[in-house]
Parts: sequence; C-alpha cells; structure tokens
Amino acid sequence: MTQLELATRGNISLEMKLVAEAEGLTAEFIQQGVAEGTIVIPANHNHRLGRYCGIGRGLKVKVNANIGTSSDYSDLHGELEKLKVAIEYGSDTVMDLSTGGDINAIRRAILKESSVPLGTVPIYQAGIEAIEKYGAIVDMTADDLFRVIEGQAEDGVDFITVHCGVTRDTIGRLKRQGRVTDIVSRGGAFLLGWIIHNDKENPLYEQYDRLLEIAKRHDVTLSLGDGLRPGSLADATDRPQVAELLTLGELVDRAREAGVQAMVEGPGHVPIDQIAANVQIEKSLCKGAPFYVLGPLVTDIAAGYEHICGAIGGAIAAVAGADFLCYVTPSEHLGLPDADDVREGVIASRIAAHAADVVHGVKGAREWDLKMSQARRSLDWEAQAKLSLNPERSRKVRQQHATSGETCSMCGQLCAMKLVSDSLGIKTIKC
Amino acid sequence: MTQLELATRGNISLEMKLVAEAEGLTAEFIQQGVAEGTIVIPANHNHRLGRYCGIGRGLKVKVNANIGTSSDYSDLHGELEKLKVAIEYGSDTVMDLSTGGDINAIRRAILKESSVPLGTVPIYQAGIEAIEKYGAIVDMTADDLFRVIEGQAEDGVDFITVHCGVTRDTIGRLKRQGRVTDIVSRGGAFLLGWIIHNDKENPLYEQYDRLLEIAKRHDVTLSLGDGLRPGSLADATDRPQVAELLTLGELVDRAREAGVQAMVEGPGHVPIDQIAANVQIEKSLCKGAPFYVLGPLVTDIAAGYEHICGAIGGAIAAVAGADFLCYVTPSEHLGLPDADDVREGVIASRIAAHAADVVHGVKGAREWDLKMSQARRSLDWEAQAKLSLNPERSRKVRQQHATSGETCSMCGQLCAMKLVSDSLGIKTIKC
Repeated sequence: MTQLELATRGNISLEMKLVAEAEGLTAEFIQQGVAEGTIVIPANHNHRLGRYCGIGRGLKVKVNANIGTSSDYSDLHGELEKLKVAIEYGSDTVMDLSTGGDINAIRRAILKESSVPLGTVPIYQAGIEAIEKYGAIVDMTADDLFRVIEGQAEDGVDFITVHCGVTRDTIGRLKRQGRVTDIVSRGGAFLLGWIIHNDKENPLYEQYDRLLEIAKRHDVTLSLGDGLRPGSLADATDRPQVAELLTLGELVDRAREAGVQAMVEGPGHVPIDQIAANVQIEKSLCKGAPFYVLGPLVTDIAAGYEHICGAIGGAIAAVAGADFLCYVTPSEHLGLPDADDVREGVIASRIAAHAADVVHGVKGAREWDLKMSQARRSLDWEAQAKLSLNPERSRKVRQQHATSGETCSMCGQLCAMKLVSDSLGIKTIKC
Repeated sequence: MTQLELATRGNISLEMKLVAEAEGLTAEFIQQGVAEGTIVIPANHNHRLGRYCGIGRGLKVKVNANIGTSSDYSDLHGELEKLKVAIEYGSDTVMDLSTGGDINAIRRAILKESSVPLGTVPIYQAGIEAIEKYGAIVDMTADDLFRVIEGQAEDGVDFITVHCGVTRDTIGRLKRQGRVTDIVSRGGAFLLGWIIHNDKENPLYEQYDRLLEIAKRHDVTLSLGDGLRPGSLADATDRPQVAELLTLGELVDRAREAGVQAMVEGPGHVPIDQIAANVQIEKSLCKGAPFYVLGPLVTDIAAGYEHICGAIGGAIAAVAGADFLCYVTPSEHLGLPDADDVREGVIASRIAAHAADVVHGVKGAREWDLKMSQARRSLDWEAQAKLSLNPERSRKVRQQHATSGETCSMCGQLCAMKLVSDSLGIKTIKC
C-alpha cells in the first residue's frame, strides 16, 4: 500500500514515524497530513532510503538539488560527486535530470548511492529514446512513454515530474496569450511539440489513470509539473500558467482518490509582489497539495548569480506557504552546474528555507539561530563554524585574515561584543 | 546652501537635475522630495562627484558598499582596489569604515578616487585617537569628537553615520530588555561605554545643534545611526531599538528645520515577517525620511554566505519601502572583506535592489528584464552577458562547458527555447 492508503486507513507507517521524529512532531500529525494529502513522503517501495523526507504543511521547508548529465556532458563519476555534495550540504532530495550518456545506468547508480529520495522527469528519457529510435521526439508513442515511467518506477524512483497539464486547451491559451518566453520547461516543450505534431491530446493527461496505476503500485509520488511555468517576469501569473494549475488541481483530486501521493510544481520567474499570490492560488486550487517551486527567480537579469536570485524568491515563497524549494545554481541559464555550483545552490536554498522555518516557528529553527548568536557573543569561533552551513568555509574565511586576539579581523580590538561586555561588566565566556 | 535649503526655496540645483536625469524623472519631482526630506542627495560642497545619487521615495533603490582598514589589516592600496571594484559593479555609494593605519590619509585618498558619494562613521576615528591620546575611548572629549567630524566634513565626506540615539534613556531600556547580543554596532558600543563611564549624556545627542551646524556648512547628509540595532533575530524589533528610532525621528525633524539633509539607519538581524513592520515604523516615526538598512539578515546562521542572507532581507525591505541597502559581504561576522567579497556583496545587493525596482515600476527596471528575456529566447549569448551584472562571469560560466551548438551545456539540443520555436514555427532570430 502507498503511504496515502495507509494513512487513510488510520495506519501509522514506519516512514511516518521516522518523518515525525525528524520534524519533532507526533506521528499522528504526519499520518493526518498524509491522509489529507497536505503532506507527501516520497518513498518508492523499491528504494532503500537512509533519510525519509516529509514535504508539506506544518513541516520544515525542504530543498531539492537537480543533478544529471546533458547531451554535451555525461560523466557518471561527476554526477555521483554532485550527489555526494548535495547530500553533504543538506539537500533533502535530489533529482536526476540526466539527458546524456547511458541514462538507465546513470539513474541506477545514483539511486543506489542516494540515501535521500530521488526524483526524475521520465519524459526526458522517453524523448531521447524516441530520437534514437525514430529520429524525432514527436514520433514517441504513448506506450513508449509509459514503458519508461514503469521502468523508472521499478528501479525505485521516489518521485517523478509529469507534465500532465500541458494539454490542447493550455496550448491554445499559450498561443492566444502571446508570451515573451513561450515555454522554458523541457518536458513542457517536448509535449507541446508532440501534441501539435500529432494533433492528439497529451497522453499523460488522457491516460492519467494508467499513470496513477503505475505510481500506486510502487508508491511513486507524482510531482505534477508546470510545463507552462513563466520563463520571464513578463510572463508571470498569466492565463496559460493558471489554466495549467486548474488542471493540476483536478489531477490532485484524482490522485488522492486513487491513493497516490501528489504534489504540484510552481514557477519559475515571478516578481516579488506576485509570489504570495502564486502560493495562495496553488493551495486553493489544489486543495492544500504540497507546493514545489523552482526558485522562484525574482528578476531575469541575475545570470551568474541565480542562486541568490532564487534564494530571495524561495524565502518569500516559503514564508507564504511553499513547502519545497528546488534550488537554482549560479550556472542556471548559462550551463550545466558542476559540484561547486551544486554546493552553492544547496546552501543558498537552505538559507531561504531556514529563514521561512524561523517565521513559521517550526521546531528547532529559532533555537539554531539563538545558539549561533550566543556563540557570536561569546566570541567562540569554533562553535560558530560548527553551527554554520559550511563549517569548512567559515573557518577558512576567519583564518584568511589572521587576527592577533579573540576577535575577528573586521573589527580587531574595536569589537562591539567585547566593548559592550566590558562596559556592562559581562564576562565574555566561551561556550 | 544645502540641497535641502535650495529645494525648500523652490530652487532646482544642478545636482537635482542630474539626479532627475539618472532616474528618468522630472527635476521638479526631485526638488519636491528633497524639500520634503523624503529624498536626500549626499553631495558635500568639497567633494567633486562623477555620479550624483538621490536616495528616497520614488527613486531606484540604492546600494552602498562598506570598505576600510581594520587594526589587523591596513593597506591603502587594498582599499583603493575595493573602491574600484565597488564602483565597477555598480555600488551607488561607498563608506570608508577604516579603523587602522593613517585614517586621515586613507580617507583622503579614497575621497579623491571616489566618483560616488562617500560616507564615514567619524566616531571610529575619534575613538581610535582617544585610545592613542588617553589610552581609552571613554576618555574622549566631546570636543575631540566634533573636531573629527568637522575635519571629515571639510575633507568632503558626503554623509556621516552619527549614533545620536544611543542615549541614557535607550541604554536604560537596553539594560531592562535583556538582549542576547546587546550592541553589535561599533559606534553604539563606543558611546555606550562612554556614557556609562562618564555618567554623561551622548554628546551627539546633547550637542546635536553643533552637529547640525557643521553638517549644514558643508552639506553633509546625516545618516542617523542605529547603535541599538538588533544583532540577532532574538533581539529584533525590541524596545531599545524602537526607543532609539523614536529619538531619531525627532532628530530628523530638527535636521530638516535646520536645512540639513537626514536619513535614518535600520537593522540588522530581522526575521522576514518583521521586515515590513520595521520599514513602516521608520517611515511613520521619521516622517518619510529615507531608510538605509544593513541587510537585513533574515537568519543568524548564514556565516560565509551573509551576502545571500542580506539579499533576501534587502529585497523584502526594499519592496516594503526601504530606500538604501547597505551590502553585506560573504565575510561578514568572520573577517575583513577582500575585493572579491566586495564584488559579491555589491552584486547580491544590486539583485535585491533591482527586484524591488521591478515591483515599484521604476523607470527602466522592467525593460532591463524584458531585454534579457528576449536575448535568452533568441539564444543570443553575448547580449545576455552584456545585460548581466557581471558580463565577464556570464561569459566564463557559459564557456567553461563548451557546447557544440547555439544552445547551452545544460540542455544541449533539448533546449526548450529551440524546441518550442521550432514547434510553433517561430524563427529564432539573434538580437
């Protein structure tokens, strides 16, 4: 049975217990959230996880890191290194978006090594295999696509992005809208081409029950993808985007009825003042399904620094109720990220997620900040390093300008912490 | 006459005209804002500027970069390099916070080289000279302090941070509050020690008219410092902070009456859900005086990545109405920043400022994003690099993973832009 089926029947699974433990909440709270569909626990029956991850209402905001090869670069070793870095710096899940090399072998190797839930976008593999087999993505058959989904589910993939809302209707709305950047989702682009070329409905929509059946069998969580997400501020919160979200909301209902866990993906490029509205309409149209956002990026001009741009949008989205932040790396819009990019992306998203956790009062969040501030006040540099997101970097930055005393090289002997402690007669005690 | 005196008399100065031009607004709008005190133009009569900078209501959000030596590191060449980098990457102003080496010589060299307005915190120099002269900051006399302020004003400093609100009253409130990190402002710490030791009122408060007289003579803009700003989330928006802000509000009134331009400094460490309130109370208590915030940092745990943490808070503050963002570098809390830190700090703050400009609809902001998105859609990589905040970095990231075709190494031939253009029959035309 899936986590959703178990929860609906009032059962508390081991996975729910472990999630509850990690969150500092009761197992009943988790069970109730899973039963309502406001919490998902991506955990394929065929994947042995080291760390279970609950995503949704009332939980810590989670972070995902995308890795994977491209047609230009496909090196399994490099991807395993990125996986290691992502997990080391605290990514809660990882998605393998490989589109180059032996995609099956790469995914299986990553699945084997990944202690955290792994997501994929199966249509990438189906599209590439169609190019190999027929010479074009548009010649892919519905059976080809479902065969890939089934294969990945059997391998143990914990969640899959499926762009079920790219339909003839939403494509019509896209054409009538007149966008600056029509479609920036690769899966969305594959399906748009397929639908137009074949003059047929999206098989992921038309044969949604077939998808549900596969997902249910292995407890694969559906991540209902936003193929029509805006790729520029100019296109944010427009009719094609909202039309797709309406469809995804209905598909969330059908997933829940079938006992399949589902979350919903969101933008993308969004001006700051539209972020809360985007979260609210997702929560409202999709009946509280967990919301998984990409960034969002709050300006289009931050190439080379998209992790910062995405951290701004991610923090605001998370405060407004987004549950799951897909990181964006410094290389976004420019090239395939390397392991350094992965590290920087994960840390930027974790800052955003934690800043929201603080606001939501989730267990342990404020306490972490308090410990850091106490260590700062005590001038306890090793405690500060240990409490930071990248202890090695903290130590390195402090040491690169050696300082003579117990203070840092910024203020030297004019350290406010020290001066005030002296003035107020407080003894600066090491933690 | 000061800009404020000119504006009050209905005169439009050359500085107001140049600011209007840079903002794409009318000179009358600038003159009216300066007259009301909702806009300041830091421009000392004795400093020749290459780029005038208006700060306040209705204008683009501005960015400041702090540079300067410390007692551990004092190398003039290094500071001039930081100045160059800050200006090159678009900082609107620079503050010289030097506390090590020949402070007068360093400031004068920076002033000479700086085409943008320069700010200082004169009490640093006064404190260090008191240590040299008497052995302790607390033995500094009021005359010593005003002599330094006068000297810096004569040198051409465009704006000065003066912690006039650290008073016996606010220190009493600080003691009764029971903070985690009492005072993290160096100027605030100096004054707290001085007030307690001497059992006297803060000379910057008690002799505020003397300060106004100096500021007026050279048209030095007062940046009313928040010596009691919170240094941790736990201390945010507490009584000492708000008590100080009340005092600063009254001092804004007195500055305006005296024809002296004034802005107000703000925190610091603030949870996201308190940022808008912080901006609103400043605007309300200080009658619309420009608000100059440090970060704010939305969590205490981001050591090594404070530029990202500050960009999140800065963007939210700027959207809520903060006018001027003081950058935070990756080295904050750990050590003195180097030139690389300065660049990263400036760019992070510029992303935050621009994201707010987009929301406010300031002239040219949306247009910049639109041009970038059009270049992205056209796969015009050189145009994208030129439109980015760091063209050199954009080119480098794109080139580090060479790609065979016109797309990037992330998606290769599976580029959504390309696929959709092909499907919709749109020709991908280079800009």
